[in-house]
Amino acid sequence: MATDADVTSVTEQAVDSLRGTADPRLRELLTGLIRHLHDFARETRLTHEEWARAIGFLTATGRASTGTRQEVILLSDVLGLSMLVEAVNAHTGPAATEPAVLGPFHLTESPVRALGADIDLVGGGEPCVVSGRVLSEDGTPLPGAVLDVWQADGHGFYDVQRPDVQPPGNGRGLFTADEAGRYRFRTCVPSPYPVPVDGPVGELLRATGRHPCRPAHIHFIATADGHTPVTTHLFVAGSDYLDSDAVLAVRSSLVRDFTETDDPALAEQCGVGNPFRHARFDLVLSRAC
Amino acid sequence: MATDADVTSVTEQAVDSLRGTADPRLRELLTGLIRHLHDFARETRLTHEEWARAIGFLTATGRASTGTRQEVILLSDVLGLSMLVEAVNAHTGPAATEPAVLGPFHLTESPVRALGADIDLVGGGEPCVVSGRVLSEDGTPLPGAVLDVWQADGHGFYDVQRPDVQPPGNGRGLFTADEAGRYRFRTCVPSPYPVPVDGPVGELLRATGRHPCRPAHIHFIATADGHTPVTTHLFVAGSDYLDSDAVLAVRSSLVRDFTETDDPALAEQCGVGNPFRHARFDLVLSRAC
Repeated sequence: MATDADVTSVTEQAVDSLRGTADPRLRELLTGLIRHLHDFARETRLTHEEWARAIGFLTATGRASTGTRQEVILLSDVLGLSMLVEAVNAHTGPAATEPAVLGPFHLTESPVRALGADIDLVGGGEPCVVSGRVLSEDGTPLPGAVLDVWQADGHGFYDVQRPDVQPPGNGRGLFTADEAGRYRFRTCVPSPYPVPVDGPVGELLRATGRHPCRPAHIHFIATADGHTPVTTHLFVAGSDYLDSDAVLAVRSSLVRDFTETDDPALAEQCGVGNPFRHARFDLVLSRAC
Repeated sequence: MATDADVTSVTEQAVDSLRGTADPRLRELLTGLIRHLHDFARETRLTHEEWARAIGFLTATGRASTGTRQEVILLSDVLGLSMLVEAVNAHTGPAATEPAVLGPFHLTESPVRALGADIDLVGGGEPCVVSGRVLSEDGTPLPGAVLDVWQADGHGFYDVQRPDVQPPGNGRGLFTADEAGRYRFRTCVPSPYPVPVDGPVGELLRATGRHPCRPAHIHFIATADGHTPVTTHLFVAGSDYLDSDAVLAVRSSLVRDFTETDDPALAEQCGVGNPFRHARFDLVLSRAC
């Protein structure tokens, strides 16, 4: 017997088709996806032409993704979905460092580096030092905590985007906090940069009159035994685009001044002339449940 | 000034980022998309791992799409979205032929063929004749109406899937209705077939315990001056999977018997031995508004 599919019954048929799903969570997710997708198409009265354009856009977005470029993540980022997923999953206390998006450039393993090392391998901008502590929410230092750090160079490009002028691992480092939970590294002051605009997401930004720029930032993932990891950014105070980040990831608690600092000991530890620009950024993790 | 993005404000920020969109319809569509996508992630409390799996799935789906295979359309099909878009856009009267999905195999231009021609170029199954009329809703014949027809062979494959054994255009034809709005062609009786399961959508079907099969059908797009075109299927009565079509496209009004018929004149017109299996399928179009 044929089961007629019409403008409302097709949704129930699609949801019912999931009844044999072995994993209950997958069934829950797909049910929610189908209901929202169908509601969207019904509410907007999506036309064939619009549907075909969306199909073409998604196809091009998948096809623009390669080993060193992830256009689908970029799409998630500019739609605010990536930041929302961070916010939804921040099961951390009020004192913990707030999360920000992973972004599309966490594609390679960061090189292990000693504390104080310079991650700017090519002299890509104004030298500076970033230092701080990794702490538990009650203020206990977390020796042995690991920080995965990555940033664009002074021209706004990550190593994977410009393999001709940046060696692999430029702007990246994997640091282990010392016995007092401290970390420090030398780098260049990051500058704002545009997300890649030569693909489908660039077309979307142009069509919506949005600029593609992100305020200056350094990415961090902090992990420590017995604690919930955090993926976040350190934003540079005073940077352009802090109020209009293309990927909607700014939180004021993550913005720091890069201040002129006179600290001969730290300057020597990081191989930078004194005085130097310095940002202090503590990462505070919640105990794992 | 930084604008804090949290679990609710990020949605308003994302919607607000569209304020410069030149095309009001694009803004409406993207606003609806962002609201539903964010509601979905909030309601399901989408985890990082689930988000990453979805990103990987969409990327693979885009990348599996080639000039002769459209995996993103197939995804839309199995989620019931394609059929819903047909239903939402069926601005046609109650007597008009109901629509069905375009499907992922309308990829090449069908060869122009004379009425009565055989679209089965390789002897792919039991011979049969399909004939009928193209009519306006008031019963007026529509001479010069064009029918674009395509179907899988008796093994369940379209020409583009098996270029080694099927010449281009096998199972396809572009027919022009005669002075009385009539059409006829010879083909083989189609059989049920699975949608392609060697890609990401196949994984999705397996994970949800769904079979990949479609009931036997022939695709039609009917167009005529002054009328709204219809994209539809002729389904074979008694076929397996009429009640569980993998792409949820069945409507009982589109199911026809392929009956043993004694009609020497039609047999001669279509180059088939008498008696022969015959399906009658009229296509009724609404006047364009």
